[in-house]
Amino acid sequence: MREQVILTDVGPRDGLQNQRKILSLNERVELILSLGDAGVRQIEIGSFVSPKAVPAMAGTDLLVNELEKRTSFKTPIVALVPNLKGYQLARSAGIRHVVMVIYGSDSMARKNVAMSRAEAEAATGDIIAEARNDGIQVTATIAVAFECPYDGITAPETIENIVDKFIALGADYVVLADTIGAANPLQVRRLTRTLAGEHDSDRIGCHFHDTRAMGLANVYAALESGIRRFDSSIAGLGGCPFAPGSSGNVATDDVVMMCEQMGFDTGIDLKKMMAASNLAATLTNSNAAGRAKPWLERHLIAKAS
Amino acid sequence: MREQVILTDVGPRDGLQNQRKILSLNERVELILSLGDAGVRQIEIGSFVSPKAVPAMAGTDLLVNELEKRTSFKTPIVALVPNLKGYQLARSAGIRHVVMVIYGSDSMARKNVAMSRAEAEAATGDIIAEARNDGIQVTATIAVAFECPYDGITAPETIENIVDKFIALGADYVVLADTIGAANPLQVRRLTRTLAGEHDSDRIGCHFHDTRAMGLANVYAALESGIRRFDSSIAGLGGCPFAPGSSGNVATDDVVMMCEQMGFDTGIDLKKMMAASNLAATLTNSNAAGRAKPWLERHLIAKAS
Repeated sequence: MREQVILTDVGPRDGLQNQRKILSLNERVELILSLGDAGVRQIEIGSFVSPKAVPAMAGTDLLVNELEKRTSFKTPIVALVPNLKGYQLARSAGIRHVVMVIYGSDSMARKNVAMSRAEAEAATGDIIAEARNDGIQVTATIAVAFECPYDGITAPETIENIVDKFIALGADYVVLADTIGAANPLQVRRLTRTLAGEHDSDRIGCHFHDTRAMGLANVYAALESGIRRFDSSIAGLGGCPFAPGSSGNVATDDVVMMCEQMGFDTGIDLKKMMAASNLAATLTNSNAAGRAKPWLERHLIAKAS
Repeated sequence: MREQVILTDVGPRDGLQNQRKILSLNERVELILSLGDAGVRQIEIGSFVSPKAVPAMAGTDLLVNELEKRTSFKTPIVALVPNLKGYQLARSAGIRHVVMVIYGSDSMARKNVAMSRAEAEAATGDIIAEARNDGIQVTATIAVAFECPYDGITAPETIENIVDKFIALGADYVVLADTIGAANPLQVRRLTRTLAGEHDSDRIGCHFHDTRAMGLANVYAALESGIRRFDSSIAGLGGCPFAPGSSGNVATDDVVMMCEQMGFDTGIDLKKMMAASNLAATLTNSNAAGRAKPWLERHLIAKAS
């Protein structure tokens, strides 16, 4: 029995909200179904945010409806909710697992939600209490868990305290997000080793960006600490559409390759994942691609022939 | 005092021999000087091979002459020699440190030098004996140390035995080369941990390619085992000019970023390294670039302003 790694593909949310092109509801459904077909274990399908603020995420309630009609689609889904209103909309839409963002720095909390870090934590704590009543699962994602563009390196003790607090509040999972892609593997190894020593490591996840080319190194460092849950984005969708060459989330394609080669079971069919990856690039009119794509294509062709 | 990491930039050899464009002697000198200026601790300047077989490496003896004239250039240099004749040419040219290739698999030895693995080892052993007499340093690089395209995964025991043998024969350094970019970090961690436990870890180096996007993850895995010597190539020069998207050596730019962020001292000035990286791309008429380049450029601009 190979040990499982649980990947949550955040491409339909973190990826699509950073694309120039806004996908139609049908296109979003198509992308999500292809990810399910590939065997991705969890999909972040969208967010319940103001359609004015994030037009790409408009109609996520309708998206949930559409997915429910596809009876062969059985992949667990999660959706991002920014606040109580978003939570209520998600709940009404039938979402059973929400993702909420808290902050590793005060400046990032103020910039993103015009609250102090403590205020943002209190607001999220209230929603967690409600979610527990509703029997809805919660993932609390800590933004800038390693470094903040305003406040610099995030003290590991700050993150340790936030994780302690949100596990105690009843978050099912806590995810450490390297929001700006600034973490290095030594930093990841140290923080995740501490956290995995103090908590059930299955409740800790990591979310890396590939901005400084260290995405996979950071995944490996966390795996070494016993972390088995990772966010990743099909074809590495993400980054900023207005900053050429800026990198998005670590590509599902690359993470799967590495995990499978190291003997982990991701549940993912490489060939179907490449189809999903190509679909992601086509739908977004982009050249998004996992870095290992040229190799992977040759490998799959060689295997088929 | 930060711990040192010793990078050998192999761009002028492993990189240039895989470019469509053949550089002039002056261009090769210019690239090497820019690497020296950036603070790279060792440079593989070329190889002493048949100019018919590898036209890009013709005139490496003249290159050494040119470099000797630049009295401000003090970076230690190494050159690849494929056989006794190459060794003699390198010695005549004034090279004081040669790199020789041995093989982790029999098939690769046969394909590359039409010898069995054992025959290739014997031939290299003879040259090492001569080099010791001549007071010339030797790095023995084990090709396909992790996986061979013909024979599959290389047994770690095979590599352990080769390292034991060549350290005993008097090789100053032994480098584990992931020639086809197939290694994964777990495999690297295990093999390097064993070797660093059995030998002076300063005598063991690693040489990774980024084919499957795991280049930096592999560097990190080896660092975790105590390895402090790495080959890398400026701007990631390398790959195959006829296979679009194929990756070369792990980019010096990326390795430096990661090592410095983790607190190691590479001796390299980031700004000058970017200049060398841009020069490498310009000289080869290519879009070679470290993966972190977009970030690094923005970072250097922000720092300057």
